[in-house]
Amino acid sequence: MNILYDEAVDGALGKVDARDLFAELRAAMPDLQILHREEDLHPYECDGLSAYRTMPLLVVLPERIEQVEAILRICHARRVPVVARGAGTGLSGGALPLAQGVLLVMARFNRILEVNPRARFARVQPGVRNLAISQAAAPHGLYYAPDPSSQIACSIGGNVAENAGGVHCLKYGLTVHNVIGIEILTMEGERLKLGADALDSPGFDLLALFMGSEGMLGIVTEVTVKLLPKPRVARVLMASFDSVDSAGRAVADIIGEGIIPGGLEMMDKLAIQAAEDFIHAGYPVEAEAILLCELDGVEADVAEDIERVRAVLGRAGATAVSLARDEAERVRFWAGRKNAFPAVGRMSPDYYCMDGTIPRKHLPTVLRGTAALSERYGLRVANVFHAGDGNMHPLILFDANQPGELERAEELGGRILELCVAVGGTITGEHGVGREKINQMCVQFNADELSFFHAVKAAFDAEGLLNPGKNIPTLRRCAENGRMRVHQGEMPFPDLERF
Amino acid sequence: MNILYDEAVDGALGKVDARDLFAELRAAMPDLQILHREEDLHPYECDGLSAYRTMPLLVVLPERIEQVEAILRICHARRVPVVARGAGTGLSGGALPLAQGVLLVMARFNRILEVNPRARFARVQPGVRNLAISQAAAPHGLYYAPDPSSQIACSIGGNVAENAGGVHCLKYGLTVHNVIGIEILTMEGERLKLGADALDSPGFDLLALFMGSEGMLGIVTEVTVKLLPKPRVARVLMASFDSVDSAGRAVADIIGEGIIPGGLEMMDKLAIQAAEDFIHAGYPVEAEAILLCELDGVEADVAEDIERVRAVLGRAGATAVSLARDEAERVRFWAGRKNAFPAVGRMSPDYYCMDGTIPRKHLPTVLRGTAALSERYGLRVANVFHAGDGNMHPLILFDANQPGELERAEELGGRILELCVAVGGTITGEHGVGREKINQMCVQFNADELSFFHAVKAAFDAEGLLNPGKNIPTLRRCAENGRMRVHQGEMPFPDLERF
Repeated sequence: MNILYDEAVDGALGKVDARDLFAELRAAMPDLQILHREEDLHPYECDGLSAYRTMPLLVVLPERIEQVEAILRICHARRVPVVARGAGTGLSGGALPLAQGVLLVMARFNRILEVNPRARFARVQPGVRNLAISQAAAPHGLYYAPDPSSQIACSIGGNVAENAGGVHCLKYGLTVHNVIGIEILTMEGERLKLGADALDSPGFDLLALFMGSEGMLGIVTEVTVKLLPKPRVARVLMASFDSVDSAGRAVADIIGEGIIPGGLEMMDKLAIQAAEDFIHAGYPVEAEAILLCELDGVEADVAEDIERVRAVLGRAGATAVSLARDEAERVRFWAGRKNAFPAVGRMSPDYYCMDGTIPRKHLPTVLRGTAALSERYGLRVANVFHAGDGNMHPLILFDANQPGELERAEELGGRILELCVAVGGTITGEHGVGREKINQMCVQFNADELSFFHAVKAAFDAEGLLNPGKNIPTLRRCAENGRMRVHQGEMPFPDLERF
Repeated sequence: MNILYDEAVDGALGKVDARDLFAELRAAMPDLQILHREEDLHPYECDGLSAYRTMPLLVVLPERIEQVEAILRICHARRVPVVARGAGTGLSGGALPLAQGVLLVMARFNRILEVNPRARFARVQPGVRNLAISQAAAPHGLYYAPDPSSQIACSIGGNVAENAGGVHCLKYGLTVHNVIGIEILTMEGERLKLGADALDSPGFDLLALFMGSEGMLGIVTEVTVKLLPKPRVARVLMASFDSVDSAGRAVADIIGEGIIPGGLEMMDKLAIQAAEDFIHAGYPVEAEAILLCELDGVEADVAEDIERVRAVLGRAGATAVSLARDEAERVRFWAGRKNAFPAVGRMSPDYYCMDGTIPRKHLPTVLRGTAALSERYGLRVANVFHAGDGNMHPLILFDANQPGELERAEELGGRILELCVAVGGTITGEHGVGREKINQMCVQFNADELSFFHAVKAAFDAEGLLNPGKNIPTLRRCAENGRMRVHQGEMPFPDLERF
């Protein structure tokens, strides 16, 4: 795959002397693990978005807060940029290194500090895996709600950085709704506690500001999360449709009915076939689209909601509806969905997973638009996504060994995101902006809006040393990029009517 | 009552020529209502915290966004501070005018712009009353969840400014959890849309930053709120206790059991007696404390939870537990609680309502500490509060006509808030900081933390013209004030062990 590299950002930073920096770090912390040889740096050159790769200057793997503090103070004094990384599973390149920067790997901060079942919270270090929190809480009948597909591997610090979601965030919210406090270090090495063990925190809501801030405001050193009681019953319905349009309409109908499913997922034909071929989940391979709708809660409530959803699905034109007979079948239905990305990956040398969010009522329009764009760019697109949230995940299939295909895939992805913006949506659902969507930020926001982001960034990191080149584009980048701003439907996608 | 006035802030602002300003506003907007005569300004000299009063320089009552924009541009050019006001029901003095500032009354922006039952949101102007939103949504079986006691009068713009809560925010969250988008004008008159009609908004979470920002970052001109389906069933249990201690423990026990009540409220003897005398709600006047616990949802779920809560209450030592027999009795039980503030007001010439939040497990300690402080200061304190959230509302009874009593009441209130901080809580639950708790912010936060608040403020309002003197104290104020910082239990309340 091509090695892309943000020369503009790295160029602006100036040359850093890696030897000098290494020597100072080593002198200050004799026991700090520092990687500097090319073969050691190699595994860190990308995160989950492997289309973008850059070899970092140095990789540091601290184990104690005092080390992180010292690393930041040294880098701050030398004006060396710092990119934080958790488990490296992010899909938008938020942890892509800089050639002239230090990669700060927080993976060794992996201790669960406290599980308090009575007050229903867990206090953990940022490198703790998402699923490990739920496992630690399980003996108390509790769990941590946000469940990204990568939950066996991704870390809670990374979840905070990207405001991660998952199948169940329609009902239980994103990371921002489930974190009650964090501790951070600023680029100058100052410690701050944000949030409180209380309902409201006075002053400005800096805790929420940090959710999804992609390591640009500070380095998260501790996270306190809400734990929820496990729902007593969970049942899943699978409905088949002979068009993606009617499946899309059924989604809006279910929500419009006042039902809040635990999960409401949609897959189109290509995704169904790929998943069935890989997992044998029992999906109807002849269907144009399926919906998986999970209802959870107490028995009586769930039973009633199942009947209501069945009725809505019938009216919306479902050709078949089946209820998972038992827990084994429920798990199998979900296994197909949860493995849809690797399943699609088997159909193509490479794939590119997009992430945009739209108002639910526009699902049919955006699906039609995506199909039209797919045809125009000559690349297949599979759709598998959190339909209840309007959170699209088009998977673009391509072959990086074919000259120009990666670039075409990226352009197609960008166009799909712009389509999301045109119908009043946004360019992220749960993967963040990272390096991937930096150009689309110029489409989502105008110069005034971006300048407020920069001012907030400067309030925490005046020199712009934390993860530069991600999340918030410079105004110059937007100008050079030549993108027009299309905001909240004010200026429609030129082709919108055609879909 | 005494007229207090923040000379420090007003002094720092410099003298504004009211005639000149009036003339410029009048010339720019011939149809703008501007109040300038003393008798017209009088009703605006305080908000719901009437212990603090200042006559504003001018009051403006715009009706169109363009007028607000022009007012801000003129004030910005002249460096005249602007204090925004909604319905004026706030309890922390967030809308207290400045003698050298313009009071911008947003009450005439009172149109409901859109109720969308299918996508379950309402888009309203900031002057719309909280209850009016639920009334507009009622025909669709929907409502807006946060319900401050002042909901018949308070405006949604003020709710945003103070991040308002209510009886049901234990289960349904504060304003920050129920607003999905806002439009604002900055002090320079720029329009911004924050939030999105989508799951996640890319970039930093400026929407959350505005919740509770007390008009210091911008003027809210439109608010889009989530609407929720009305619960099908709501039942309320009333439990009596022979000590506030055991009632406090019962609260932690209910939550620890994994039950999330729709509301969980506590009243102590003084509050019970006041409410019963006023409302005849059927409260047990001989009890030392009562809990009201509402369970809502679907029938089967509610029925089961009632039995679980009954069992917990029994084990916690409740002397009596009764279930409201019908809807009329349920409404009567709540009427006592909702009118507890005016009921207590009948017992004393004046009262001062505090608002702090603590971890639930410390309820007994803080109630004992409050009783000890009440005795030391020689002022009665009634306790009526959102116990499930740990959100205390001590009502301090005093007589402002007795020399020194107001000052003593204020000092006692400050001590109670510092006690909240000492056990790891915060100085606000749902009333905000405003002018009232500005000194306690020096106790809650250290200088580093406050300097981040100032930097964020400067990102939006570099000249500090929006509501200066509220919410975020200057470092100088904290230094002059001589308060020690007591943060997250690091430095305990000196008397804590005694309680």
